[in-house]
Amino acid sequence: MTKDIQNVEQEFLQYLKKMTSYNEAIGLMHWDLRTGAPKKGIEQRSEVIGMLSSEVFHMSTSDEMAVYIEELTNVEAEKVISEITKKAVEECKKDYERNKKIPAAEFKEFVILQSKAESVWEEAKEKSDFKMFQPYLEKLVTTSKKFLEYWGYEGNKYNTLLDMYEPGMTVEILDTVFGQLREKIVPLVKAISESQHKPVTSFLYEKFPKEKQRELSVALLKEMGYDFDAGRLDETVHPFEISLNPGDVRVTTNYNELDFRPAIFGTIHEGGHALYEQNISADLVGTNLCMGTSTGIHESQSLFYENIVGRSHSFWSRYYDLLKQHSDGQFDHVSVEDFYKAINESKPSLIRIDADELTYPLHVMVRYEIEKGLFNDEIEVKDLPEIWNAKYEEYLGIQPDNDAIGVLQDVHWAGGSFGYFPSYALGYMYAAQLRNAMIKDLPNFNSLLEEGNLIPIKEWLTEKVHQYGMLKKPLDILNDVTGEGLNVNHLIKYLEEKYHAIYQLS
Amino acid sequence: MTKDIQNVEQEFLQYLKKMTSYNEAIGLMHWDLRTGAPKKGIEQRSEVIGMLSSEVFHMSTSDEMAVYIEELTNVEAEKVISEITKKAVEECKKDYERNKKIPAAEFKEFVILQSKAESVWEEAKEKSDFKMFQPYLEKLVTTSKKFLEYWGYEGNKYNTLLDMYEPGMTVEILDTVFGQLREKIVPLVKAISESQHKPVTSFLYEKFPKEKQRELSVALLKEMGYDFDAGRLDETVHPFEISLNPGDVRVTTNYNELDFRPAIFGTIHEGGHALYEQNISADLVGTNLCMGTSTGIHESQSLFYENIVGRSHSFWSRYYDLLKQHSDGQFDHVSVEDFYKAINESKPSLIRIDADELTYPLHVMVRYEIEKGLFNDEIEVKDLPEIWNAKYEEYLGIQPDNDAIGVLQDVHWAGGSFGYFPSYALGYMYAAQLRNAMIKDLPNFNSLLEEGNLIPIKEWLTEKVHQYGMLKKPLDILNDVTGEGLNVNHLIKYLEEKYHAIYQLS
Repeated sequence: MTKDIQNVEQEFLQYLKKMTSYNEAIGLMHWDLRTGAPKKGIEQRSEVIGMLSSEVFHMSTSDEMAVYIEELTNVEAEKVISEITKKAVEECKKDYERNKKIPAAEFKEFVILQSKAESVWEEAKEKSDFKMFQPYLEKLVTTSKKFLEYWGYEGNKYNTLLDMYEPGMTVEILDTVFGQLREKIVPLVKAISESQHKPVTSFLYEKFPKEKQRELSVALLKEMGYDFDAGRLDETVHPFEISLNPGDVRVTTNYNELDFRPAIFGTIHEGGHALYEQNISADLVGTNLCMGTSTGIHESQSLFYENIVGRSHSFWSRYYDLLKQHSDGQFDHVSVEDFYKAINESKPSLIRIDADELTYPLHVMVRYEIEKGLFNDEIEVKDLPEIWNAKYEEYLGIQPDNDAIGVLQDVHWAGGSFGYFPSYALGYMYAAQLRNAMIKDLPNFNSLLEEGNLIPIKEWLTEKVHQYGMLKKPLDILNDVTGEGLNVNHLIKYLEEKYHAIYQLS
Repeated sequence: MTKDIQNVEQEFLQYLKKMTSYNEAIGLMHWDLRTGAPKKGIEQRSEVIGMLSSEVFHMSTSDEMAVYIEELTNVEAEKVISEITKKAVEECKKDYERNKKIPAAEFKEFVILQSKAESVWEEAKEKSDFKMFQPYLEKLVTTSKKFLEYWGYEGNKYNTLLDMYEPGMTVEILDTVFGQLREKIVPLVKAISESQHKPVTSFLYEKFPKEKQRELSVALLKEMGYDFDAGRLDETVHPFEISLNPGDVRVTTNYNELDFRPAIFGTIHEGGHALYEQNISADLVGTNLCMGTSTGIHESQSLFYENIVGRSHSFWSRYYDLLKQHSDGQFDHVSVEDFYKAINESKPSLIRIDADELTYPLHVMVRYEIEKGLFNDEIEVKDLPEIWNAKYEEYLGIQPDNDAIGVLQDVHWAGGSFGYFPSYALGYMYAAQLRNAMIKDLPNFNSLLEEGNLIPIKEWLTEKVHQYGMLKKPLDILNDVTGEGLNVNHLIKYLEEKYHAIYQLS
């Protein structure tokens, strides 16, 4: 019996290996499409991606998979199989059940709808024409609601969507933490807007040669502990990180010669994601656990580096000279103090991806409130532009002139991704909470930054977060590392201290 | 019945599409490994490649494939299915039979042996130690001989190996053409070595900045008609061309700042391969016929561009100014005449890949004679160094000091590739024969080069060769285009005229 189970375990692991191999090939094709694949090959490449993706989907819902799940999830089997296998089967089971519950024809229709909706959205955004996109969004929401009925839910319906990106996350938790956060941020944003001590930022917009930005990006990634023997840096329109396996975790950035910030902070941000993936335990390679555990925890790693490290005074007290060496003299007459303040300028804006550290969570909350309303039948798609604008007025005190820079700005809904947005704000909260725990273990945190000794920071994150991949759920990581559940006060305290100082608020 | 066969045909084409999709993914992974994949990801990437390759191999020998072959290769079916399907099944059948004849365990052992032999060869070459490599080469030859027995052969045993790379090629044909060629080349090489009119070449070795070589490479590829919307140029240690699909055919080159020739002629050479693949008929995409028909015909396209176009006087009378514009002044005092002679300098050398146009076929013949002897039990592996050196003395009048620059110089045998080398020389013969036919259709061939109007040349090759992919066999292409079988006299005439003029031989 035991022998049999061990055989099944080995076969199952081999089966998983095949699935992850296919996913690695798909990942490389995606990377290639975004980093310079010739345009005439794209149509054919998309077919290849589709072919391999179908195969992976098929494998995740096959009768073979059903047998593995059955044979490996029972008391007898669990005595014999490894902890890793146990978790791997658990994830397979979750996927199997989720995918099997949707009738194949309906799923296929949804995939086609997504793809159409994305092209329509692109055009609608260009023309700032919400009406054009409305029927597609309606269909996407209706279909997702139907899927929700197939999947089932506990408590709020929207919980099931949240759980897809952030296992264990609920409306109850989010309502609480977002409420607390908003209560503190809104007045802070207002106080800043009334402050007399606004940073000078004009020097940020001088010409910074692209090749020098690239060199600086490479240098900073190395400082962070990004391993170039297990990755590479390329240029794309939108920066991203992609992990093919822990030995091949690639990042990209985008260079704007009249504003170095997108490239440098983009690089640091993606570098944070990459450190997570490069440092997942080798034991998990070839399994479905060899990736970051959730979008929120992933975002906590990128935001930790981008903001807590990369937008800190300590960091720039060390690296400002390096920046100056690469620039064309634009900072020669700017003190590190003024530089620090400039890169932390905060003011309400309309576009989420351009928002500063302080106002960013408010952009996320607008989307969260809307999604929650949609899936609880409290909001209708046709009213979205009006609701969007009203929420922006309420949270940020400004309103878009048109829907292109309003409700149509993000691609997520066109892709049928509902429940994703909250992860962005959760990432901030997790990051601040991790910072609090890290400072207990590394009380010299600021000195480390000032000395340019970033490796102990990476090692701490690897020990506490990275190595586990999907072995631990997000809230378990939080509990194990910080000794408490999600606690937004760490983020509030961090933001208040930082912005009070910068804007000299009383 | 007809309806049934049409269904089978559609299913078969879908099956093929899956195989070609997997091959495209494998191709991209190979390209990526050679253009900058991080080294720590290589081991895992190799496993992914292995996984997908096994799948393709499995599909080519599956029971499903056997059924397709049976149902689509009979008189009834052939009345119904398309010409393309007919040829596609034919190729599948060939692969099926070849692969099925080898017992799985023996094939697997051979794959492992190949991989081991390549690493041993690498070390043996480094140490110039043939004895170290000898047992592996012996095993490779023995195993290949055993496979030959499984496969069977007509006439000379070596024919079966030739046929794998150059369908229809035989020892009988090669002995004749190689004999004729050698008879003319050997005295020509001797006459050149005694000529008083040797080109001056010192100016070739001045610094030519890498970035400028790259720009020139791009410009020349565009002139040739290489479509950058269906390809890209990257840098690698050894230049190569790889076709993922006709809309994505990539080339690479290598830059040496103290000798621009490897980059420029490497680019033109790979560009010639790429034009072939970019211009295969769209009807063949997704089938196993969507690739060049043989290694020899492929090589004819690259050599046509590299030598017949790229090393001609007419070509440089047009493009010498372009070269000068990119260089750092190294050609300012060099006439186009002297430049033309310098890039066509011919002298016996030891390394095949560095050989000039005239002596290159002699290097190939040495290898051909040895392979033929090995598979007809006339030569033993242990005697190879001695035989190699004697053949070089006989054909080229020089001998290597050590085996690293002698019998150990090429990787082919370590990879178990026997029968491949002759393709290189066949490429020369085909190219010259195509040139002869082209000049009949385009009597202004030289003027086209002088005017920089290379497109009619590409179009002629597309019409006669490229479009067919594997729909036509190499010797059929030759017959259809030139009205005769392989005829080495065209190459002889071309070489004699060219080198008589350059070296002012009587």
